[in-house]
Amino acid sequence: MLADDVLGSKRERNERPLPDSYIKAYQAISTDPNNELIVACRGDEVIGVQQITFTPYITHQGGWRATIEGVRTSSSERGKGLGTELIRFGIQRAKERGCHVVQLTTDKKREDALRFYESLGFKASHEGLKMHL
Amino acid sequence: MLADDVLGSKRERNERPLPDSYIKAYQAISTDPNNELIVACRGDEVIGVQQITFTPYITHQGGWRATIEGVRTSSSERGKGLGTELIRFGIQRAKERGCHVVQLTTDKKREDALRFYESLGFKASHEGLKMHL
Repeated sequence: MLADDVLGSKRERNERPLPDSYIKAYQAISTDPNNELIVACRGDEVIGVQQITFTPYITHQGGWRATIEGVRTSSSERGKGLGTELIRFGIQRAKERGCHVVQLTTDKKREDALRFYESLGFKASHEGLKMHL
Repeated sequence: MLADDVLGSKRERNERPLPDSYIKAYQAISTDPNNELIVACRGDEVIGVQQITFTPYITHQGGWRATIEGVRTSSSERGKGLGTELIRFGIQRAKERGCHVVQLTTDKKREDALRFYESLGFKASHEGLKMHL
């Protein structure tokens, strides 16, 4: 599902066996209380995934933030509201963890994604800057 | 220093004793191996601060990312290269931790900050979206 994506197709390796780096990342996420991998299933089939990271900051009077990242849905599910359900679940988890803000970045090339997040109430108030190392 | 900032002045509480929420956030950060608070000092005086969060993701073949947040410098130090030194230190820490990308967001109202980060090699490739809870 990560590789079945306009941008992801260039940077993921959908092979069997799965490259060890994916397994290690999964282990790091699943053992960290401040990271959650949310997996949506229909029956036995995985149809969506997203990651939420909870981070304490000293800014904003020491407030916690939730960052949503790596939102992907199965191509067969697109347009059926699964993305909305995933993000709403993320917002709910952020509230349960006492976060004062939930944040995410989206590639400026993903114009549909920007409109989707704005329709859910997110404000594109920030520039998202990256440097590849 | 957090309160001595155009945006921070509205949302921080610079009081003695310091509100407990700041102390708790500091404890949460300092006990988390994936969060580092970088403090720059000149003699006994704190002149700069920033936070780096290291996050494992399953995207990008299970790559780790470094997120820089809450970069603040003392008003007496501005224009002397301290911000550059802080960010370069953050990039160095990201490399040491094996991150494939270092990322940050900056409020679109901070136009100088955007130019500063771009001058250091960051690309404003993403929209940064927030929802206050």
